[in-house]
Amino acid sequence: MNTRERSELRLSPAELRQRIRTGEFHGNTSGLAPGFVQCNLAILPQDWAGDFLRFCQANPRPCPLLAVSENPGDTALANLGNLDLRTDVPSYRIFRDGQLVDEVDDILEHWQDDFVTFALGCSFSFEEALIAAGLEVRNVTQNVNVPMYRSNISCQSAGPFAGDMVVSMRPFVAADAIRAIQICSRFPAVHGAPVHLGDPGQIGIEDLQKPDYGDPVRIDENELPVFWACGVTPQVALEAAAPPVAITHSPGCMLVTDKRNAELAIL
Amino acid sequence: MNTRERSELRLSPAELRQRIRTGEFHGNTSGLAPGFVQCNLAILPQDWAGDFLRFCQANPRPCPLLAVSENPGDTALANLGNLDLRTDVPSYRIFRDGQLVDEVDDILEHWQDDFVTFALGCSFSFEEALIAAGLEVRNVTQNVNVPMYRSNISCQSAGPFAGDMVVSMRPFVAADAIRAIQICSRFPAVHGAPVHLGDPGQIGIEDLQKPDYGDPVRIDENELPVFWACGVTPQVALEAAAPPVAITHSPGCMLVTDKRNAELAIL
Repeated sequence: MNTRERSELRLSPAELRQRIRTGEFHGNTSGLAPGFVQCNLAILPQDWAGDFLRFCQANPRPCPLLAVSENPGDTALANLGNLDLRTDVPSYRIFRDGQLVDEVDDILEHWQDDFVTFALGCSFSFEEALIAAGLEVRNVTQNVNVPMYRSNISCQSAGPFAGDMVVSMRPFVAADAIRAIQICSRFPAVHGAPVHLGDPGQIGIEDLQKPDYGDPVRIDENELPVFWACGVTPQVALEAAAPPVAITHSPGCMLVTDKRNAELAIL
Repeated sequence: MNTRERSELRLSPAELRQRIRTGEFHGNTSGLAPGFVQCNLAILPQDWAGDFLRFCQANPRPCPLLAVSENPGDTALANLGNLDLRTDVPSYRIFRDGQLVDEVDDILEHWQDDFVTFALGCSFSFEEALIAAGLEVRNVTQNVNVPMYRSNISCQSAGPFAGDMVVSMRPFVAADAIRAIQICSRFPAVHGAPVHLGDPGQIGIEDLQKPDYGDPVRIDENELPVFWACGVTPQVALEAAAPPVAITHSPGCMLVTDKRNAELAIL
């Protein structure tokens, strides 16, 4: 880690957002502003927001809703900090009719007065809790994106929003898998307990070394793959619903909030 | 279930102990006095009690201590109900120098003024919680004793008390195994969360269909074996330590108490 990276690590969420806003910081937010919640983002026209809200509420494990716009067009989200949804994420993805059409540093020119924003919990929060408990999170130690897979676990549909659950995978020896289940059960707002462990074929995954998203990680012989509901699920549902316009964060480039991970613990 | 069994099921713990005391009831206490804690029992001369107490405290998962005699020779245990330790267990095992020498209905004639009694949590409590959550507990549905195995997980020794952990096994599909870990984590006083799941070879178990104690159960192809620390562990440690005399309950014939299982939940 170089000097600049070290100094970024020590930034408060507000300072980090300021650097993102001014273009001084680009890229992945993993490991930055430690202790604070980072969010998946989904922005939709008001006409589509009701169904998407129902989709999140019906599928809380892949889509744990932390905040939603009070009014259409709001450029901030109550309780998450003094932030501007149009500029404070390092990279945004623009979808039109379900197709990814652009990746941009801000969405000032794309903003619409009827936009409703959804902030969803992200695995960074529970990975921090696992590491704090002394567990090794393989994608973190290997410094790659977590491997993610389209499973055959169906989400409950809501209007046009539907699809199978995307899951992320982290390998653990059994005793650590049990500990991980206990730790993550405390954090339902960031995907909660795993949804599966052991045989990947049971949830429709053929080859762990060929993830649909992210990077493969090493799995030792004495380890079990442990699967969590993943925040890519709502993005897949968005693509399937194909609204005229939708905006999300780019993978790994999250909305950094002033909310503490510890606040999300239910016990 | 016949009429008599039905009526026994409805008995309060005090009524059930009364029937045991008078010899009206014999045998296994599984499923009786539902909602109330049943205990593993270990009775030792005072000279051996200090080390055994340390053994329990060093190995809380196999030996979750619920109560211990206030004074040597006490024939009751505070907080567990109005009970007589010499008569209120359906069947006792007498060990001399670590060897099982007799199985008796009461220990009135064996009682010593220097006896210290240990009441340890038992899996019946968490099985009740699992069933209440809608999970199938295989040994209960198959109406057999749970299969138990000597694992290669070493207990922490205390004086002459030492040995490997005995584990009980219940098979579940992965999602139910995760739920079982959550449920049992609430009950550390009755063995708590599982200690292992998946590959039995990793904890030194060669053949699940050949348990060291209890009966084999069916394991379906899509199920994982899930292993809990077991109350037979202290009995094995007792046999290894070989005190001149020791008394335990007979397997499945537990001390039925007035304490509610729900009282044991830590959250």
